This record gives sequence, structure tokens and C-alpha cells, in this order.
Amino acid sequence: MTFGERPCLIDKLMRQGEAVTILNADRLFPADQTTRSIARRLYSSISFAPILSPHGHANPHWFSTNEPFSDPAQLFVVPDHYIYRMLYSQGVPLEKLGIGSASVEDSRGVWRIFAEHYYLFRGTPTRLWLDFAFQELFGLAARLTPANADEYFDVITEKLKTPAFRPRALFERFQLEVLATTDSPLDSLADHDAIRAASFTGFKGRIIPTFRPDLVVDPDFPGFAENLARLGQMTRMDTSNWQGYLFALRQRRLEFKARGCTATDHGHPTAATADLDPDAADRLFQKIASGKGDAHERECFRAQMLTEMAAMSLDDGLVMQIHPGSLRNHNTRLFERFGRDIGADIPVATNYVHDLRPLLNRFGNESRLSIILFTLDESTYSRELAPLAGHYPCVRLGPAWWFNDSPEGMMRFREYTTETAGFYNTVGFNDDTRAFLSIPARHDVARRVDCSFLARLVAEHRLDEDEAHEIASDLAYGLARKAYRL
Amino acid sequence: MTFGERPCLIDKLMRQGEAVTILNADRLFPADQTTRSIARRLYSSISFAPILSPHGHANPHWFSTNEPFSDPAQLFVVPDHYIYRMLYSQGVPLEKLGIGSASVEDSRGVWRIFAEHYYLFRGTPTRLWLDFAFQELFGLAARLTPANADEYFDVITEKLKTPAFRPRALFERFQLEVLATTDSPLDSLADHDAIRAASFTGFKGRIIPTFRPDLVVDPDFPGFAENLARLGQMTRMDTSNWQGYLFALRQRRLEFKARGCTATDHGHPTAATADLDPDAADRLFQKIASGKGDAHERECFRAQMLTEMAAMSLDDGLVMQIHPGSLRNHNTRLFERFGRDIGADIPVATNYVHDLRPLLNRFGNESRLSIILFTLDESTYSRELAPLAGHYPCVRLGPAWWFNDSPEGMMRFREYTTETAGFYNTVGFNDDTRAFLSIPARHDVARRVDCSFLARLVAEHRLDEDEAHEIASDLAYGLARKAYRL
Amino acid sequence: MTFGERPCLIDKLMRQGEAVTILNADRLFPADQTTRSIARRLYSSISFAPILSPHGHANPHWFSTNEPFSDPAQLFVVPDHYIYRMLYSQGVPLEKLGIGSASVEDSRGVWRIFAEHYYLFRGTPTRLWLDFAFQELFGLAARLTPANADEYFDVITEKLKTPAFRPRALFERFQLEVLATTDSPLDSLADHDAIRAASFTGFKGRIIPTFRPDLVVDPDFPGFAENLARLGQMTRMDTSNWQGYLFALRQRRLEFKARGCTATDHGHPTAATADLDPDAADRLFQKIASGKGDAHERECFRAQMLTEMAAMSLDDGLVMQIHPGSLRNHNTRLFERFGRDIGADIPVATNYVHDLRPLLNRFGNESRLSIILFTLDESTYSRELAPLAGHYPCVRLGPAWWFNDSPEGMMRFREYTTETAGFYNTVGFNDDTRAFLSIPARHDVARRVDCSFLARLVAEHRLDEDEAHEIASDLAYGLARKAYRL
Repeated sequence: MTFGERPCLIDKLMRQGEAVTILNADRLFPADQTTRSIARRLYSSISFAPILSPHGHANPHWFSTNEPFSDPAQLFVVPDHYIYRMLYSQGVPLEKLGIGSASVEDSRGVWRIFAEHYYLFRGTPTRLWLDFAFQELFGLAARLTPANADEYFDVITEKLKTPAFRPRALFERFQLEVLATTDSPLDSLADHDAIRAASFTGFKGRIIPTFRPDLVVDPDFPGFAENLARLGQMTRMDTSNWQGYLFALRQRRLEFKARGCTATDHGHPTAATADLDPDAADRLFQKIASGKGDAHERECFRAQMLTEMAAMSLDDGLVMQIHPGSLRNHNTRLFERFGRDIGADIPVATNYVHDLRPLLNRFGNESRLSIILFTLDESTYSRELAPLAGHYPCVRLGPAWWFNDSPEGMMRFREYTTETAGFYNTVGFNDDTRAFLSIPARHDVARRVDCSFLARLVAEHRLDEDEAHEIASDLAYGLARKAYRL
Repeated sequence: MTFGERPCLIDKLMRQGEAVTILNADRLFPADQTTRSIARRLYSSISFAPILSPHGHANPHWFSTNEPFSDPAQLFVVPDHYIYRMLYSQGVPLEKLGIGSASVEDSRGVWRIFAEHYYLFRGTPTRLWLDFAFQELFGLAARLTPANADEYFDVITEKLKTPAFRPRALFERFQLEVLATTDSPLDSLADHDAIRAASFTGFKGRIIPTFRPDLVVDPDFPGFAENLARLGQMTRMDTSNWQGYLFALRQRRLEFKARGCTATDHGHPTAATADLDPDAADRLFQKIASGKGDAHERECFRAQMLTEMAAMSLDDGLVMQIHPGSLRNHNTRLFERFGRDIGADIPVATNYVHDLRPLLNRFGNESRLSIILFTLDESTYSRELAPLAGHYPCVRLGPAWWFNDSPEGMMRFREYTTETAGFYNTVGFNDDTRAFLSIPARHDVARRVDCSFLARLVAEHRLDEDEAHEIASDLAYGLARKAYRL
Repeated sequence: MTFGERPCLIDKLMRQGEAVTILNADRLFPADQTTRSIARRLYSSISFAPILSPHGHANPHWFSTNEPFSDPAQLFVVPDHYIYRMLYSQGVPLEKLGIGSASVEDSRGVWRIFAEHYYLFRGTPTRLWLDFAFQELFGLAARLTPANADEYFDVITEKLKTPAFRPRALFERFQLEVLATTDSPLDSLADHDAIRAASFTGFKGRIIPTFRPDLVVDPDFPGFAENLARLGQMTRMDTSNWQGYLFALRQRRLEFKARGCTATDHGHPTAATADLDPDAADRLFQKIASGKGDAHERECFRAQMLTEMAAMSLDDGLVMQIHPGSLRNHNTRLFERFGRDIGADIPVATNYVHDLRPLLNRFGNESRLSIILFTLDESTYSRELAPLAGHYPCVRLGPAWWFNDSPEGMMRFREYTTETAGFYNTVGFNDDTRAFLSIPARHDVARRVDCSFLARLVAEHRLDEDEAHEIASDLAYGLARKAYRL
């Protein structure tokens, strides 16, 4: 089965009278028959569009080595904080899921725990993504339950051993046209080089890095001082002085760009930007680099660095992504025990209007600059983000992000932003995932929700259907290609 | 007619061609026929589930004495600030409604004013609750108008004199399995004792107190100093010192628990918590108890007390409810004239992520602890509350509260929280009411809205119908039973 | 064709088989057939109600001179920042649209640019308003495209030369019963006087001024000191002292009132109010008037002036409108080049509960006072505004404003406010527009959205249809008439 045969498979199963319980061809479309028919038509014209994944957290090592994935627990549960945060919230200790261990000893045991708690995901996007992968990739069309947990485990484990389930084969099966990973300036990009080398041996997948400099830009990042030093070593620049530091960053950006990188990404606690004069910036850097900056100065430095990054983007053409407003590691005890990214990052209210003003007052009218804004604070959609994107030529809106990357969340994004910013100040979908196997499912959900939104506009005679077809195609493919300069 | 015969009554009236204008069997279900059919099926399986009312403001004295209610004005208008705030907003003086008087002299006059202004409640939940009570309890199936105000008054007044309308009879007719009242630590709980005593003479209703210590925990509460002294007298502890004060609270909690109490409730202006070391807490208490604390210290004391209460809950197992974010008595002149709870409490923006962190960093990973969070600030649903509940094992989300206890408000609660927190980090419905006769109506509205939400998920193939039935039952009954340890 | 014949025109075109692509008779109604039928019935009973436009920015000079409008670029593009902000956001320089020039040299060229970018408005209310005007006023029923841009330009230009398209003729064709403009206290109101004089020669249109004193009340307004001096000259009062200043304002209010004015309007950065004692207010004024106030004092002065205006309203009966929360001229460079009102005003989070308290504590219980609150911060609808309006007798809620004056925005306004404030604490629709030709379209959209909201309540059996008809009529006409004392 190739991925493209999906609907036929479903038809075939239905003709055979087999229960296809976990995926319906009309899933996520509005119940109203008129609207659903329109949504179906829109979706059918874009469902097979290639996937652009311009922002995500796939591991390039998977593709450079092309080693098989091990087993369903390792593949689906252990690396996905969407999953284990929910289990943890209901009292399952992280240790029982193998989190924080060097290796999972009892993958089958972890999988059984997961199956026992699968009902917790009812109504969540995780459930939609997983059901999609189970049925579409592994042909498992009965709902996961404690009773069939072992069967699931065995079927998936077996398939993962086959060539069709190696990372590169899946990449092609998923019709991924571009996959952007997220990479540190301190990364050698050896995996990316290896992937590019593999193209001579047949793997044509376009996998590109994204420049994510937080660990050398955010003084609160663990190991910041060492990171600065390593940046100096990599670039042979003196990163203990401001000009050397900036130059080192510019150099790494160019090295990323040489590997196909088209964008940077910035995950700051707030959207604060600053526009200090060069001397003041230099003095601030000295204080920060020497570890003497207080909380206000550290925030000010992050703020100044966003503006510096915008200046660099004007020169090298990298698109700038800003993902603010997540309070990382809210659960101190868990952080001390398990480290980052264990599902305890909690969003906070974010102010874009005041915070972005210094940067926008300097560069906001530059059409050559492209800044894509994301939020976890939905109250800013209609109040701040759509008005900013509907005015500044450099501002675009990233899709519903993280907790809002969900059917209701994506629908609200359209409902709250379209009337002020239109469709053409948005940039299509990002899957933003570490879970490689969920990529087709995530894009499918986004396409279905966008088609449902468009279908309602058509059904309510607010948009003509021929226009809706064009927009559906742009949202699924064209806008991402353009916004990320792919 | 018993309450359980409700749908038959409606069928019968319809067959007789009588106008049943004020309640339709499909009320609150989505108009789309596919979705409505699913909603009907879901609702029909849970509409007769017994009612758990784990948080509310019924007066235990009603049940200890079992005296009849007097008349519709006294029953529906005078005690319900939802009603008279609306009348006041349109220029009806509170004095004309008998508010602030020792007794209402002209109940019929008050009722007539209410009937004249009944149109103001169009589109509000108050209207749904009242229509339900009028039809279901009093058989009044024509819409209340100035023309039939007297008829309404007479019919209701007559029925209230009959044994079937005594508080205990209504309790049983409502199929109330548990009713929790809200009680001060300074309350003797004599009514609760009397109710329990009544069980030997036939009344089997389970009516339990809830420990609401605001008046001895919040230094801004009127009479705080006297309240501390009274707490000391009741417990024979020296509440002028920190350890004595804490011990007195622990003792009262146990006395509540002995009367069936399973939960505490905390109505603070903000969600602030603190985690002071014991010496600093002691010093702060000294300052607060002597009346010398400034605004910041008073806030800090409330904050510390939430953490102290969590510590006590870990010991005695009482579930903790936090209801923050209401600015009480916004209308100073009305407060000076009429006192508290006259409809002038206004919500304010609330920050849970920073404010709860001290408490959560101390106790957040305790599965034995259960903290139920409420909000009046809907912008926190997806941004703060669902992410917190979807991670911390001790955090659960209370239902849409107060102004949001309404069809649109409840639907938004599900739409904004489910995708991140799931259904199983929520706790079912609270009626939170002083209006005893509205309890069945309020639970009925909640059940119908939840079934409507579930029906949409089913109709959009995001959930299977067998799962939706399970969830509907959990939302109507199971989750409240579990969350409140009933 | 008179405006009233609209639906017949559509019918006729449809019978002739002509494509009427841009307006459908059911536009904006929900797709569900049951609900749509109800919406149609509700709308049909109010679609021809006369238009009350109690808040807007039409230029009274149009009606005093009754000169023809020039061409479509001048009429639709150049004066409408909704339009050119969107074009600017996609990289069209304002200069190419003739913004900032004394006159547009190439109107046809501007129109062609607009037509090329018309797809950007898909899904926006601007598109709905324009399509309405194109079809209903100019009989242009094919969608605007680059291909037909010249045809559009020619047809509209020709029609604008005819008597039927003069401002006064359009006023009557639009069935405008009242049109309120927005006027500065420094305006002589000569245009208003001329319009009133014209009534003796046949033009019966009721066009009234609105008292908008920001430029003499807000110390941050450009030219504030000169404005104070001019106010003094106009009123022959000494506006360099506090009593003289207040008296001058009172006098101008009366002069406005003599021209039919019924309302004031206040566009402050925040909703802050203050209630200083007279001496403190006097001292503050001295500091402000001498240009020495710092940012805090300037904010405090604006705050005090809202309360002073409320005091004056109690005396002269003018209704008070407060429009806070827009950060004006966010794009400093564009402001320096093009001035105010070029589409770069961005909303900010707004706090009504604390900010309005000083004013409400002084006058909040006065039924004679009427304060209409607007917001650009939708998070305040259910949290702050509906609770305030549902309690204070003087508070009413203005309709969804500016960026929220859109189908989704208006629907959310009803969904978030009705359950707490009801319908009768709202004031009907404001078009708030500078684009005279969009007035019928804007009211039509509002009426359709309100009917759609009501239809859903009826379809879900939350409201009876006879009540919905009454409410639809009140929302379209009655509430505005009452709230604005027309």
C-alpha cells in the first residue's frame, strides 16, 4: 500500500464489511449536509497535495542513518510529551513510562499502560493523530484497547522491521516535499550533510535545518556561558566581544543557509524586542557575557537579540519565526529530576503590541523582511495579532500552535484572524512535531479543518466556491511555500 | 406527578393539543438533525441519573426544619442576585423588590414587577431555569407575562403549602443523591446535625457541609479579628498564635469531616499562593492578626493560607476548591446600603500560572491531593487552566462558573479545555446555587449542553458513539462522584 | 431603482438567468435549513426598517454642499483605512494608492491596483460591504477582477455624475432616519447649520453632530495647548483656568445639543477614570495646561475628564460613549510621513473593572446617566463588560467595534454578552464608518447576523419565535433609538 491509496483502502475495507471504526472519510467535516458536501469537494481537491513541513522537530539522525524505529512504545509514547503529560496528569508516574531512563526496559509494559489509559485522549487531537497512524500506516482499524494492546504491539513491531517502515521510506510515502528540522547553532549539521550526501545514492528527500539560536541568545538557557565559548570555537571568532559574537552568529546562519535553511526560530519567554544604540548594546552584552546581568537585563538582551536577528534576516533573507509565551519547566521538581520538555511548559498571557514595537519601528516597513508570529494566548488573535499582520508588510501569522494545534484551536484561529488579516497574511500549516509518524495525520487534520471553515463561508454565501478552492490549495501548500521561501 | 415522569407529562400535554410553550423536549440540542438525533440518544441515557450537587449554597436550615417556602417572590426573586441584578441594571430600585428589608411586605407587588420585566431575561440561563421550574414543578406551561402574573402567583403560593413542596419532599423528588452546602468554620453545623438526626425519622437525604474558611483566612473579610477570636472560642485554641490558629482550622476541618464534608472551598480575590518558611509565616500571621498588615501582606497571607490548606488536605483528604477572580462589592454605595451578594461582584483577569506556582511546586506532584480550579476569566481556559490540568496530577478543572454557568458558557468550557485536558481532568457539574428550586433545571441544562457537545464530536467522527455514552454518564454523574470523593 | 426594491431586483436578475454572483439572498444565514428558515423569517420582518446611524464618521460637508462624489478610487479606496491597510500589509506602498498626496493623480491606476488585490479581502467584512455596494447601488453583479476593473471604474464614475448618486439623494435612498457625525468642540458646526437650513429647501435628512472632545481633553493630542486656546476664543472663556475650561466645555455641549446632538464620544487610550476632589483637579489642570504634566498625570487628567463629562451628561442629558483600548499610530515612521488614521492603530488589552470604578462609584447608580462602552478586547465581553452592564443602571454595551464589526465578531459579541447582560443592555448597531456608501451594507450585515443568532436560539428552543421577532426589531431599530435618545 502506498500512502496515496488511502481512500481506496478504506473503500475496500468497507466493501468487505470489515469494521473501520477508527477513521471515517468525513471526519472533522461539519455535520450539516450542505456544508459537509462543500467541505468534501474542497478537501478532495487538496487531500493529495504534497506535504510541506517548514517547522518541526524531527531528528535528522533518523534520515542520515535510516535505522529502523524500534517498537511502538519507543516510537509513540516515550518521545511524545503530549502523551505522557496526560498520563501523568492522571497519576501515572513518569518512571513507569520509561521517561528519564537511558533505555526503556519493558516496552511492552509501557505500551500496555498506554492502552489502559487510551480513553483519556478522547476528544483530543492526539487521539486523532494516533488513530490515523494506526489505521493508515499499520492497517490497525480496531480502536486500541487494553484487550488488543498486545496485538497492536506485535503488528507495529513487526512492520517497523520491514524496509517500508524505515525513515527514508516513510518520508517518501508521506509525500513530504520539504521537512525542516530545528537545529542549534552549535550543531555541526553532520546529519544534514549526510542526508545531502545520500541524495547521490537515491534518497531525494529535501530535509533542511532551521536556525534556532536560543541557547546562545538567551542568558537564562542552561550552559549559556559554555555555549558562547563553543560558538567561538566553531566559528573561530572571539565571542566574548559584541562584534565577534554577532559575526559568529552571522557566519553560522550562512552555514545553515548553505544546507538549505530558509528560516530562523526564536522561542523566547515573551515577545519583547529592543532597539538599543550600538554602544548600549555592546555594554549590555559585556554584562550578560560576564554573567552579571540581572533578570531585567537578561530580558533586555533577549529583546535586543530579536532585533539583531531581524537585521541579519534583512541581509541573508532567512525568514524569522517568533514563538513566545511559554513558561518553561513550570514544575520545578520534575525539571530537576527529568530535565526539559517533559510536558510541564505552561502558556502565559503575551503582549505583542508593546513588546514588538521597538523591532517594528525599526524594520516593520521592510517588505523584504518576513516575521512569522505564533501564540499560545488566543486572546491576542483578534486583539493584537490579526491587526498587526493586517498592517505591517513584514508580519505574517503562524498557524495555531502547540496546545492550539487541534481542530477547535485551528478553527478558532481562522474565525478570529481572517476577518482582520485575511487568509494571505497567514502561512499555512506547521506540524511542529517530534513524532515523525504523526506528520501526515497532522496535516490531514489541518486540511480538513481549513476546508470545513471555508465550506461554512461558502454555505453562508460569504465566499464563492471557486475562490474557496483556490484558498484551500493555498492553505495546504502555496502559502507555506511562499512564506518560508521554499 | 413525580419528577421522573417529566417526559411523559410533556408527551401527554402535546397529545392533548395543549400549548406547552415554555419547554421543548429538544431544547438546547443543536438544530442539525443528525447531531440532534445523537444528542437525544446520549441525553436519554443519562437524563434520569441521580443528581450530585457537590458545590452550592442551599440553606441547610430548610431541611432541618422542613418548613414550607412562602411565596414565589420570596422563593424566586428576593434571594436570587442573578434576577435582581438584571432588574436593577434596567432601573428597578432594589427597595421596590424588598431587597434590604427585614421582610417583604408586598410579595405580590414584587412578583408583578418581576413579571413585567421577565422579557429582560430572554436569552439568559435564568430564563431557562425559571421556565423549567414553572412547568416541571408547578405545571405552569404558559410563558410568564404581566397578564398571568397573578395566576402564577396564586398557583405557586397554593402549591407551596402542600406537603409535596416541602424542602425534604422536593429533595427526594429532585433525585438528589448528595447535596453539599457551603459553611463557615464558625458555623455550629447544628442544622447539619439536625438533618442527620432526621434520618432516623425517615428523611434519607445526604446533605453535607463544605468547609469555606474565607472569613477566618482573608484579613479583608469584614470582622476578621472577631472571627479569629470566635474560632478560638469554638475550638478552645489560642488563635492569636500561628500554631494555635492552624490547629484550630485543622480541628474544625475534622469536625466538618465528621458531618460528611468531603471538600473545602476558597473564594479569594486572586489565585495567589505562597510558600513561606515556617518562621516567616509565623511573623506574617502575627502582623495580620494584630491588624497591622498592609495590602500586600494581606494578599500574601491569603496566598500562604491556600498552601497551608493544601497541606491540611494532604492529611485529612478534603478536596480543595479554589474560586478566584471576583472583585466583590464593586458598587461601593450599594454595598454600604445593602451589604454583600447583591449582584455587584465583577470578574477580573486572573493569572493561574504564576500565582499557583508556589503551591504547585510544593504539592503539585501529589496524586493524593485534589485541587479543583474555577475561573470567571475564560481567556485562561486554553491558555492556563487546561495546560495545568493536563499536567499536574493534583489539578482538576471545575465546571463553567457563575456568569459562565450558561449554555454558551458551558459549551465554550468544553471547546476550550477538552483538547488539552481531556474530559477526565474535569469534575462534572456544580450548580453553585442559592435557588434550591433551580437545581434540577441547572443540571438538566448542563447535561443537555454536554450531550450536544459530545453529539457534535460524534457527528464529526471525532469520537465513537459508544464512547460518547460513557463520557455523558461520567460528566453527569461519575466524575463528580470521584472528584469530590462522595 | 429605489433601494427598497432590492430583493425584487435580485429576483428579476435570477429569472433572467443572469449571474448574480456577488450577493445571495441568504447570505450570512446559517447553513442548517431549519435555522436558516427561521433567520429568513426574522430578517424579512426587519430588513426594511429605517436605518439609525447614531455613531459614525460621515463628513457633514457632503450633505451641506451635496457635490457629487468623484470616482471609485476616491470614493472607496483612498479614504478607507480598512482597505489600504490590507494592501499595505501585502507590500503595496501607500504612495501608489495616492495616500498622503493632496490629490490622486491617477484614480484609474489606483483602482486597478485595488482590483488586482481584491482577492486579499476574501473572508473579510470589507469584501461583503463592497460587494453589496457594487451590486445594490451600481448594479455590478460580477465579481471585481483585474479583467473588469476598467468596466467597474467606468460604470461607477458615470453613475456618480447622476443626481441619484448625490449625497442627499443617497441619504434618502438608504432610508437613513438619523445620521450622527463625529465632531470636534472646535468645529463651528457650519456644515450642520447649512444642512439644517437646507431642510427648508426640501432635504429632510436628520443629520446630527456628536461631541467628541478628545483634542481638548487629551494632553497627548497633537496641538493640545493651541486647542485649549481656540476653545477659549470660541467660547470667550478663560480656558487657562479649571472653571473656565469646564464652563467652555459645557457651553460647547449645549451648542452641539442645539444642533440635535444627543451624545458625546471619548476615544481614550484606556478606560481609566478618576474622581479627584475639586482642588486636586484644579491643581492637576494647571499642571496639564502649562504642559508640565508627566505621562502619569496626563493619564490621570484624561481619567478625571471622563468623570467630569459624566457630571455634565447628568445635567444636559447627552449620552456618553467610551471607546478605549486602541494604541494609536503604532507605526511611528508611517505616522511621521502620513499622519493619523492610516490603519496603524492596534488594540491593546483593556481593564474596565478597575478603571471605571471611580466614575461608577460616583455616578454608577444614576438611571438618568447613560454610558455606552465599547471594546477592541473581546476577552472583556464575558469577564467584565457583560457583568458591568448587567448590574449598573447607567451602563450599556455598544456593538462589536472596529475590527470586531464583522460577522464572526458580531456573533461572538452576542454569544459572549447575552447570557449575562441580556439583549436590553445593548444598544443596537453602530456603523462607525467614514465610507458613506457602505452604511446600508453594514447595517444589513448586522441585521443578518443578529437574526442568525436569534434563529439559533429559536431552533434550539431557547427562545420563542414571537419573542425573537420583537428582539430582532429592537436590535435593528428600537434599542438604538432609545439608547441614543433619538
